Amino acid sequence: MARTLTVELGERSYPILIGVGQLAALGEACRPRLRAGAACLVVSDAHVDPLYGPAAEAALRAAGFRPAREAVPAGEDSKSPARLEALCRRMLAAGLDRGAFVVALGGGVVGDLAGFAAAVFMRGIPCVQVPTSLLAMVDSAVGGKTGVNLPEGKNLLGAFHQPALVLADPATLRTLPRREYLSGLAEAVKYGVIRDAAFFQWLENERAALAAGDPGRLEAVVARCCEIKADVVARDEREGGLRAILNFGHTAGHALEQAAGYGTYLHGEAVAVGMVFAARLAQRVLGFPAGEAARLEELLRALGLPTAAPGVPWERLQAALRRDKKNQDQRPRYVLARRLGETQTGCEVPAELPAEVWHVIGQ
Amino acid sequence: MARTLTVELGERSYPILIGVGQLAALGEACRPRLRAGAACLVVSDAHVDPLYGPAAEAALRAAGFRPAREAVPAGEDSKSPARLEALCRRMLAAGLDRGAFVVALGGGVVGDLAGFAAAVFMRGIPCVQVPTSLLAMVDSAVGGKTGVNLPEGKNLLGAFHQPALVLADPATLRTLPRREYLSGLAEAVKYGVIRDAAFFQWLENERAALAAGDPGRLEAVVARCCEIKADVVARDEREGGLRAILNFGHTAGHALEQAAGYGTYLHGEAVAVGMVFAARLAQRVLGFPAGEAARLEELLRALGLPTAAPGVPWERLQAALRRDKKNQDQRPRYVLARRLGETQTGCEVPAELPAEVWHVIGQ
Repeated sequence: MARTLTVELGERSYPILIGVGQLAALGEACRPRLRAGAACLVVSDAHVDPLYGPAAEAALRAAGFRPAREAVPAGEDSKSPARLEALCRRMLAAGLDRGAFVVALGGGVVGDLAGFAAAVFMRGIPCVQVPTSLLAMVDSAVGGKTGVNLPEGKNLLGAFHQPALVLADPATLRTLPRREYLSGLAEAVKYGVIRDAAFFQWLENERAALAAGDPGRLEAVVARCCEIKADVVARDEREGGLRAILNFGHTAGHALEQAAGYGTYLHGEAVAVGMVFAARLAQRVLGFPAGEAARLEELLRALGLPTAAPGVPWERLQAALRRDKKNQDQRPRYVLARRLGETQTGCEVPAELPAEVWHVIGQ
Repeated sequence: MARTLTVELGERSYPILIGVGQLAALGEACRPRLRAGAACLVVSDAHVDPLYGPAAEAALRAAGFRPAREAVPAGEDSKSPARLEALCRRMLAAGLDRGAFVVALGGGVVGDLAGFAAAVFMRGIPCVQVPTSLLAMVDSAVGGKTGVNLPEGKNLLGAFHQPALVLADPATLRTLPRREYLSGLAEAVKYGVIRDAAFFQWLENERAALAAGDPGRLEAVVARCCEIKADVVARDEREGGLRAILNFGHTAGHALEQAAGYGTYLHGEAVAVGMVFAARLAQRVLGFPAGEAARLEELLRALGLPTAAPGVPWERLQAALRRDKKNQDQRPRYVLARRLGETQTGCEVPAELPAEVWHVIGQ
């Protein structure tokens, strides 16, 4: 029995289906929302395609679509302009036209790459997001952000392209490497901090079961995170204001990923450290309670996530912070919390404070 | 004294400024619509930059913006994914961030490339279109279509990205090679055929002055074409229906460009032949009057445009037609006229008819 949420965006509204075993219902879920009999390309990666590609293809074929499959190499390197071009040429070779669609079956890399390909192929065709990692389910598959990286930084080329449909089957998380799974939980913690103190407390109570990967609880986690994200995106589709709260922990998190060398920290791990950093800044700037900062660090540790980044000096982090594409006039702005569940965007902080705080975290 | 039109697209509405000498007012025109003091990149090509780049840059600087300039190689080859990537990296190097904007100063290639770069740079920044060719002024600079080519065909990657402002200075047409200028007039004729029989007749009356390049009349031509295009785009921003009438003559025109080898026919020349082809199809399918078809051919000839494509066999044209991205289920659809000023989209034609008609034009 799937749960269904809706991202309310007027004529671009779309459903999010969440349920264990729902991958088998992918074709039926697409039927009311995509042209009958349309060609489509299931884009996946070398890890995910053997596991779930055949099931996705079979479900689409049974619903009357004409699917082909393409697996890109696993890993962040596939989020490149060259791969984007190659993928679009593969779409042409597979017979996709303006009436066709793309299915992004995988984690954040596949979702971002395939979503961007759909956004620009013949000036835009629909994309169905089928996230198979926890990070993608609770974050990247919802909200329409797509893109690829440049040597200068991540996601520097991209588009807002809302999916036609999101289908999240937590059964696919069983095959996710444990470290990636835990990394996804960091984003779940983020939703508690920015928008829902009760959810944060629920995560604290369930931390042992969550660290162990209990499937029933995962469905609930995915559903609550998607609800919060759907609500935020519906209020601010293109990051004009409110949506920036989703970047809590991400300013320093993105910089840490870059400063430590991509691949050293998984995205969620870097966000965990970034949230600790933001909480400490917030203690000094917005009076975020010390007790709540301690609860955040404790929860992250209980979920097997890092709360410090030893060996990454401030100078290296600072250089990466200066390249953040959310900067205005090259000055970093932070998303900071007043208390659990309540967040403020666009915060400037005293010039010396970040270095001081980082000294504790990154020494 | 500039004429100002508006493309009515709700929150994406934008003005079109048309006037001899208006390039000097570019900075002032940008001021109400773009962030004060913003960085910007004036993208041009190796032909246009020496002629108008310094004036554009000076006007922007005088209005408080921080412009840099970039000239791509002239010609269609610059509409490539590799050039797009290089241009976006140049934008980063020039200090452009999310608050910055792009100025596309040139013809259709520059407008499509720079517009697409603006569409995808950090998921989208504003673009100001400053067309310097007649074709770009009457067609490509207005309406938000941007893109680059793939080896398989033109504009296969792209985005709808409405400009923040269009500024057309007919004085820049003085330096346009005559053949390109005449090619632009083909698109003007198109507007008459699809939407305005009186304008068609005005073009017939003024054909000698237009062929000679009279600047005053050009301002009127650009203004009327932009009015028609603005009206069509406002009614159908993303080519769901009405907008397809703008493709009159373009189905066969695009195919001819490809079949003859890109560069053999200029875009407008190919469209001229494509309009003759469409008119002849329309005579057979929709009862388009023979006298009006004859007037169309005569006007095109008077403007120095081709009305036939000797040496391009049907088989080659047909192969190109089959790759058209507007095809549904790989069958070409045509935009055909019932009479001058009245057009119908999505026309299927009897299977043998196109070959028969082409035999007269392409033998």
